[in-house]
This record gives sequence, structure tokens and C-alpha cells, in this order.
Amino acid sequence: MLARKHPAYVIGFDYGTNSCRAVLMRPDDPTELALATFAYPSGKEGVLYDPRDVHLARQRPADYLAGVKACVASLLDQARQSIPGFDAAQVRGIAFATTGSTVIPVDAELRPLADRPEFSDNLEAMAWLWKDHTSEADAERLTQAFRDRRPDMIERCGGVYSPEWFWAKVLRLSHSDPEVFGAAAGFVELCEFLPGTLAGAKAGNVVRSACAQGHKLLYNSDWGGLPDADFLSGVDPVLRGVRESTSTLVATGDRPVGTLTPHYADLLGLSPDVAVAGGAFDAHFGAVGAGVGPGKLVKVMGTSTCDVMVSGEDARVSGICGVFRDTVLPGFFGIEAGQSAVGDLFKWLVQHLVPDSYGKTDAEKFAGLTAAAERLRPGESGLVALDWNNGNRSILVDMDINGLIVGQTLHTSAAEIFRALIEATAFGSLVIIEQIEGAGVPVEEIICCGGLAQKNPFLMQTYADITGRPIAVADSSETCAKGAAIFAAAAAGLGSVIDLQKRMVSAPRATFAPDAAAHAVYRRLYGVYRKLHDAFGRQGSADLYDVMKTLNAIRREASHG
Amino acid sequence: MLARKHPAYVIGFDYGTNSCRAVLMRPDDPTELALATFAYPSGKEGVLYDPRDVHLARQRPADYLAGVKACVASLLDQARQSIPGFDAAQVRGIAFATTGSTVIPVDAELRPLADRPEFSDNLEAMAWLWKDHTSEADAERLTQAFRDRRPDMIERCGGVYSPEWFWAKVLRLSHSDPEVFGAAAGFVELCEFLPGTLAGAKAGNVVRSACAQGHKLLYNSDWGGLPDADFLSGVDPVLRGVRESTSTLVATGDRPVGTLTPHYADLLGLSPDVAVAGGAFDAHFGAVGAGVGPGKLVKVMGTSTCDVMVSGEDARVSGICGVFRDTVLPGFFGIEAGQSAVGDLFKWLVQHLVPDSYGKTDAEKFAGLTAAAERLRPGESGLVALDWNNGNRSILVDMDINGLIVGQTLHTSAAEIFRALIEATAFGSLVIIEQIEGAGVPVEEIICCGGLAQKNPFLMQTYADITGRPIAVADSSETCAKGAAIFAAAAAGLGSVIDLQKRMVSAPRATFAPDAAAHAVYRRLYGVYRKLHDAFGRQGSADLYDVMKTLNAIRREASHG
Repeated sequence: MLARKHPAYVIGFDYGTNSCRAVLMRPDDPTELALATFAYPSGKEGVLYDPRDVHLARQRPADYLAGVKACVASLLDQARQSIPGFDAAQVRGIAFATTGSTVIPVDAELRPLADRPEFSDNLEAMAWLWKDHTSEADAERLTQAFRDRRPDMIERCGGVYSPEWFWAKVLRLSHSDPEVFGAAAGFVELCEFLPGTLAGAKAGNVVRSACAQGHKLLYNSDWGGLPDADFLSGVDPVLRGVRESTSTLVATGDRPVGTLTPHYADLLGLSPDVAVAGGAFDAHFGAVGAGVGPGKLVKVMGTSTCDVMVSGEDARVSGICGVFRDTVLPGFFGIEAGQSAVGDLFKWLVQHLVPDSYGKTDAEKFAGLTAAAERLRPGESGLVALDWNNGNRSILVDMDINGLIVGQTLHTSAAEIFRALIEATAFGSLVIIEQIEGAGVPVEEIICCGGLAQKNPFLMQTYADITGRPIAVADSSETCAKGAAIFAAAAAGLGSVIDLQKRMVSAPRATFAPDAAAHAVYRRLYGVYRKLHDAFGRQGSADLYDVMKTLNAIRREASHG
Repeated sequence: MLARKHPAYVIGFDYGTNSCRAVLMRPDDPTELALATFAYPSGKEGVLYDPRDVHLARQRPADYLAGVKACVASLLDQARQSIPGFDAAQVRGIAFATTGSTVIPVDAELRPLADRPEFSDNLEAMAWLWKDHTSEADAERLTQAFRDRRPDMIERCGGVYSPEWFWAKVLRLSHSDPEVFGAAAGFVELCEFLPGTLAGAKAGNVVRSACAQGHKLLYNSDWGGLPDADFLSGVDPVLRGVRESTSTLVATGDRPVGTLTPHYADLLGLSPDVAVAGGAFDAHFGAVGAGVGPGKLVKVMGTSTCDVMVSGEDARVSGICGVFRDTVLPGFFGIEAGQSAVGDLFKWLVQHLVPDSYGKTDAEKFAGLTAAAERLRPGESGLVALDWNNGNRSILVDMDINGLIVGQTLHTSAAEIFRALIEATAFGSLVIIEQIEGAGVPVEEIICCGGLAQKNPFLMQTYADITGRPIAVADSSETCAKGAAIFAAAAAGLGSVIDLQKRMVSAPRATFAPDAAAHAVYRRLYGVYRKLHDAFGRQGSADLYDVMKTLNAIRREASHG
């Protein structure tokens, strides 16, 4: 690689559920020059669980800062070895994509309460990870209150306030541990905590993420920012104080929230002039890193799946996580939806219900299942599943529902169930797509990213066959970190997000075209899925007598076909 | 044991799905003096399958006769060694309990067509095992025709003619293999073939089993025997000939159909004076061997389950396999119902969906699952299943329906599913009990027999808790063979069935009382089961929105309780 004169470099971070990853890039090239990974050391694969409550999922905030240091050190080491003339002073920007709502109780200095000795073993003082579902009842209270008194607000996020989101988590903490709640000067999203900490912000002036504030706190300029204090204190008086403690500084990721403090510049070995970009959720930066644009839906596929789109026009999409201005690409409305369990659903099967004849390790079982599932024809298993083992994020927005499998015979195999679960996630994705299109936003192409998408061509072909749309697989393994790098470059003044996206995102590594014959069978199976979806997920009555008979008819045709 | 002067002995046979068993008994004692077993040598565990059609299950008729010879030889050997002064000439009667409808195409000499070289590899010429479901479409034709033109007949067997039954199987054969069909002089049930062959009958004069004829061929004195020729030829002209070829000699098991031919007396080493009793289905003889009587439901639990009761009064029970006079205990109406998969359902899970962490062999996995399932509280898994992986024999009588599991989370274990399947079979049993009681026949006590009942106290306790009734487990492991021995003694003139039953059936080996707290939880879960049962099994609409929410509420209470 040729060393240019005064080349600029940027660092993009992606904080996931079990680890964080970082990439080093230049603002004019899709190459990821260096990649670093840090596995959170606490809990089980980085997550703290409570055996008495399956809904609880927390993280230790100290793991996050350890990750910044370890990853930057690794990136700089790699760059010095592989890039002639590389100098750490050439790094110009840094940005963070993170999970969310992942909410951290902090003191006035923006230090996590969990760092204090008295709270170091208290799960309530930890970061409340996105997938923590302990706030179900609080979310229901919020949903009801919004519907009764601020319907315009709740309509923006699909009509239901999720237990995964900020207000529900904070409300839950106020009664689950009043001591921790009382000791907190404020509550921040992880994507605000990291840039704020590196730039030396306090709890009172930390810059809030437009993405997090819009999608999770229902911040909107239409109603002057956060939901009003009267409304929040009507839900619960404690929320008035939380609102007051929440800084009104809100910025998109292309703006710097500041530069590195001398402490962090020294600790990381970077210049104190490095621009620290406003943070955002992984899927939002990831969508930009994968090439999101009008008509192009990006699916960030991992343990769960996040769907991100942009629209030039405002749109109201019921049951969707939200439609908010500037949260994905500046100048567009960002649309976000999601599925609560995708990779996690397959992992559940592999870890709980697969005999060793498929393989000894989880990876071998996954490969064995895939090979066997691939040999089946659409409809041949006679199975249809609902992919709700971890609830339904879109479009039902209901955590109080569960998985279902129908159509088993005495010959049904683990591979057939595996295929049915894959198909169920694709059917769930199609429900979301139809919901978005129903609101007038066409979905012409799907770009998938994340490890699950890249490693599993069978999964991608199934998604193409079921959705009836071409599926492109993003070339980068780290689209979220790459998206963060694009915003790091924008925050450092190296270009606009749109221009940087054109230069820093590469062509798809593969494209899957839908098979017309498979799609025809899947349309019939989707009819069954949709019937079950509405029967178990929505109020009202349904006639399900034909479900098993339809599945059997399709199975017989597929077996003889 | 004291040798009496001229003691009498009898032999009872039980022909099951994978093997036949035989017992040697005296007519005045519950002791099984000798027990012999013969595993059918053909196919997979005695069953011939077709990989292209999961509904097909056949057996090689030659295996049946090999079983008679091997078992009698073994019984006589054992008796000579353990009973002082035993003489084979003291054996006075022999009787056969078998599966059914298990239908064999035979020539005029009552020889199976499968014995001929030209048909020896033809699955269509074999015995059509009870669980063969290839006749679904033919059964539907019969059901429709009965409903349209002979509703009184079909009402006797619950309103639906099953693909497991005689007329459906023969009708199917007439078009699936016209050559085999044309070569047959007649079609006999296995429980008619064995006594007939040993007593030297021909196809034209073989004595028919009252039990098989009543329950499967709809023979009834109310309408003068078999369904009339006009009706049958209206369904399909070929059935008129089948009807004409079916002997009109019908007898109950307490009557001899004849004595052993010199050939079989010589082959078996028995006296040619041995009375050969009329045969019956395993569950019918088994119910007598287990102690069936008014108010006492006997469940013969194996791969599938057969429920047998008697009633002093005639009763019409919709969805039940049948209510026919004299088919169980002479002088009573016999009531038969059944569940298509019980042991087979657990075996399916063990063989397809259980990781080796539960054990390496099927037996170890079964034990590991049972131990883990036993530790759960009722409702704790949040799961409810429909036990229809092999269709529903009672009370829906529908083979075109399948299994269902609802309530899965990302933590659902194989042991939880195992428990849910056990519970599902008990809920299915309760549906049958409520149907029988709804027709005015009280079910006060349940007697379970079969290996599944004896080896699994957890299963029995679950049945007691779910049905809310005491469960007695029969002492004998071979109640069907024992019941056959009772009928062998009756046919040999050694007493009436009622008196012999009192002397030859022993007290239960264990009794399980229902737990009131568990029963209360199960009543709620039964409500969910029943809702799913009716929604997927019956026409009409249902509101299922509360299903998952109810299961989650019960799960939360059980987890914290």
C-alpha cells in the first residue's frame, strides 16, 4: 500500500452483546486496515444473568472502557506493523456504535454507579442491556399512558412502548432498587456514555444521541424535545426528575461532541485533537456502513435482527420501532424495526434440542443441521413456526408472547425444525417489509450484514425465496464499526456522510436472487404463518381448522414433487 | 408348587407391534407360570416401512406363525423345568390377542398371499399393520358415504371411519395393487388369522372375531351383521365382493373356534384337543386381564394407548372408536377409545431432539429426561403441546392433523418439552374421559397397564394429577396375554370369563392419588389445551390471543411459587 502524504485515519467502534470490535480506516477507501476485538470479561460471555429471572440481562460498565483501551492499542500496533510511515497522530476521528437501549446509571461526573464499591455486586446498578426484559409491566404502564394522553407520541414508535427502552428501564429501577435510583445523577445510553466519557462530559452536559433519543426516549422536535414533564410525572412522579436530569444537547453522529480529554489521549496514545463523534445504535451506523439508501432495507443480523431503512418522506408505520428524522442518514427519515431473536433462536435449538449425531460441538451441529436442512424442499417438513421465543419486537411489540411450532409428525427431525425456524424468521421479516410498504415506503432490495448473513448462504437464499426480493450480502464483516468510522470521518470534517459512504462502502460480496418455484410454495406457507401470527398475536377470533390440513397438503405435494 | 392331580393349563398370546409374548397360566391363580417372547425378524423391529411414504407400515405374515411355534416351545420348556410333573397334554386352551385392524390378504386356504414367491417382496401383499395410515383418502370416502346413507352405522364408531380400519385398508388395496387384490380369496384380521390357521379353517369359513367385526367392520346385529351390500357397493363396487368373501361366523373370545389341527398339535407339541379360542384385539383381552369392570377405565399404554371400558347400558359416545355389545366382557357393552401416539411420542422426542448430555442411549436419555422433568412444577415450563404427531384417534378421529408445541422461550429445555408431551397425552386422555362421562358412563377409577405404565411412576402421577382420578397400575406386565389366557380357559370350558377374571387377575402393584394443588394448576393448563384442541381440530373460530399470555402468567406463578 502506498503511503500518502499526511493521510488521515479514523477509528470506528461497534459495541455488541458479547464483545466490542473496532476498525481503522481511511476516509477514501473501503479497506479495513486493522481490526481489533475485545470480549467483555464479566459474566457469561459478557452478560450478567439472574437465575431467578430469565428476563434480566445486565453488563458491567467497566468492561466498556477496558474495551476502548484494548482495541485502540491493538489497532495502533497493527497499523504500525502494516502501514509504512503510520503515525498515531494521523488518527483524526473516533466514533461509537453500540447496543441500545443499554442504560447506565451514572453520578454527576458521568461515572457509572457500578464502579462504586457499595454497588459493585448489585445487578440493578449495572448497565441494563438492550435485551433486558424485566421492565415489562413498566412498559405496559407507559404504553397505556401514551395511548391515553399522548397518542401522537406513541404512534411515532409503532403504538407500543417496549420494555427494552429507556423510560421503562429507568421506571423499573426506581422501584426495583430505590437506593441505586436515588444515588444516580442521571441515566445515559451506552452510545452517549462512551463519547461523553472520552470527551470529558458531565452527567449534566453530556451530548445525547439523536438516534437513541429519537427512537427510545421519543425525543422529537415536533413536540419540543422529550415527552413533556406533565405527561411523564403523570405516569410516575419520579420521571419528572429523570427528565430534568437529561441533558438537552442532542446531536447526530456526523457532529463531534468534543475532542479527547488529555487523560484519554494519553491512555489511548492518540492526539487530543481527535474528534469524538456523537454515538448511535449499532444498527443505525451499521446500516450506513452496509449501504442503506432509499428503497434499500438493511438487515443487521445477529442474535437479534435490526431492520433499518431511510425515506425521503415522513411515514407512519404502525408496530415499527420508530420513524425519526436524521437518525440514520442526515437529511432522511430513519425507519427502524426488528426481530427479538434470530441467531439466538437457532442457537437455542442447537444448544437444547439437537442430538450429537449432527456433531459434537455447537459449530458442528450448526453445520450438520444446515447441510440436512438444505436438502429439504420448501414445505416438505410440513412445519411452520412462530419465531417469538424472545417475544416480538416488530410489528406486534409484545414481549409476553412465545414460540410455537406446528405440524410435527413422529418423523420430524431436528434439521426440519431448524429449517422451520429459519423460515419463521424470514416470514417475520416479510411481515415487517409488508408493514413498511403498506405505509408507502417501497422495499426493493435487501442488504444483509452481520456474521449470520455472511456465513450462511442457505439462510440468505431462504430469505430471498421467502421475501421474493434480491438479497445482497454486505462485504464487510464489521458494517457497524465501518459505519461508525464513516461518522468518525464526518465528525472530523473529512466529508459528508453521503460522500464518505460512497467511498468507504464496498460492493456486496454476494447476491441471492429469489427462486420463483420456491417463492410460490412459500407464499402459501406465509399464509399459514400470517394466520398463526394474527391468531396468537392479536385480539380477535380466527378459524385455524385448516392450518394443519394445509400444511399436510403442502407437505404431500413437496414430497412427491 | 404342589402338583395337583390333573391340573389344567392355558396359553394366552399377545401379538404386539414389534414382538409377540405368551404366558402359561392355571385357571385358578394369578401367577404367570412361564413367559415367552418372540421378536418379529422382518423389517425394522418387525415393521416394514416405505421411505417414500411415512404413512405405510406393514408386517410379514410368516413372522406371526414363527412366533407361535417359538413361544409355545419356550413355554413348554420352562414349564417342564419349573413345574414338577408338568405334562404338555395338560394344556387345555390357547387364545390370541393381537393388534388391529391388522389386515391380511389370504388365499382360499387361508394362506397369506405374501407367502407366494411372486408377492414375497410386495409391500401391498403383506399384513397391513394397525398403524398403517395409507388409506386416509379411502377412509374419508367411507366416512362421507356412511354419513350420507348409513348415519346410524357410523354413529356407532364415533362418526368417523378411520384409515386404520378394515374397509379402508381393503378399499385402498383394491386400487393401490389390483393384482394382489384380485389374487386374494379374502381378507382377515390377524386375530382371526391365527386361531383360524391353528384350527384348520379356510377363508370361506374362518370364524370372525366379534371384537374386530364390531369395532372395525361395523358388524352389528341391529342391522343384521355387516353393513349391507347395497351400501358397500355404492361406496365402491369392489366392496360387494369383499363382503361376500367375509364369513358370517362371528364369535366372542370365550367360545372355541375349534381345536388344533393334527399338523399344529404336532408342530407345537400340544394335544389335538386343545380348544382354540376366538381371537380379539389386544386392548380388549388386555382390559379383562387388567380388571376392567363398570366404572373402571383400563388404559393399555404402549406406543399408542387404547382405552377400554364396559357399560351395562348401551351408550352413544361421539368420537369414540366404538360401543359394541359383548366385545370386551360378555354381557356388557364394550367402549373403546384411543390415542394414536403415547410411547411413540416420547420415543420421537428421545430419538430426534435430545442432546447426549441427557445420556448416550435412548434408555439413558429417557431416564435423564424423566429425572429432569420430575423436578419441574406444573406450569413451570410455560409449554402446552398437542399430542397429535400421529393424528388423533379419539375423539376427533382425524389422521390429517399434527403435533403442536406452544410457549417456547430461549431457555426451553428438552426436559421441559418431554414433560409437556407427557402432559399432552394426559390432557388427551382427559378429553376422552369427559366425552365418555358426557354420554352418561361414569369413569371413577383408571387402571393402567403396559410397560410404559409400570416403568414410569412420574407418568402415572402426572396422569392422576391431570385427570383428578386415582390411577391403579396393573400388576401383570402382560395383561393382554393374561386376558387371552382367561379367554383360553373360558373357551376350554374351565369357567365363565367373569369368574376366571376374579381368580386370574391380581391386585394392583401401585396406586397413585391425585395431588390437589397440582390438579388445580392442571385444570388451567387443560383449559389452554382444550382451546387449542378445538381451534385446530374442529371447524369454527376461536380467540387464541390469551393462550400465550395465560401460559406466561401460569409460568410466572409456578416459578415464584
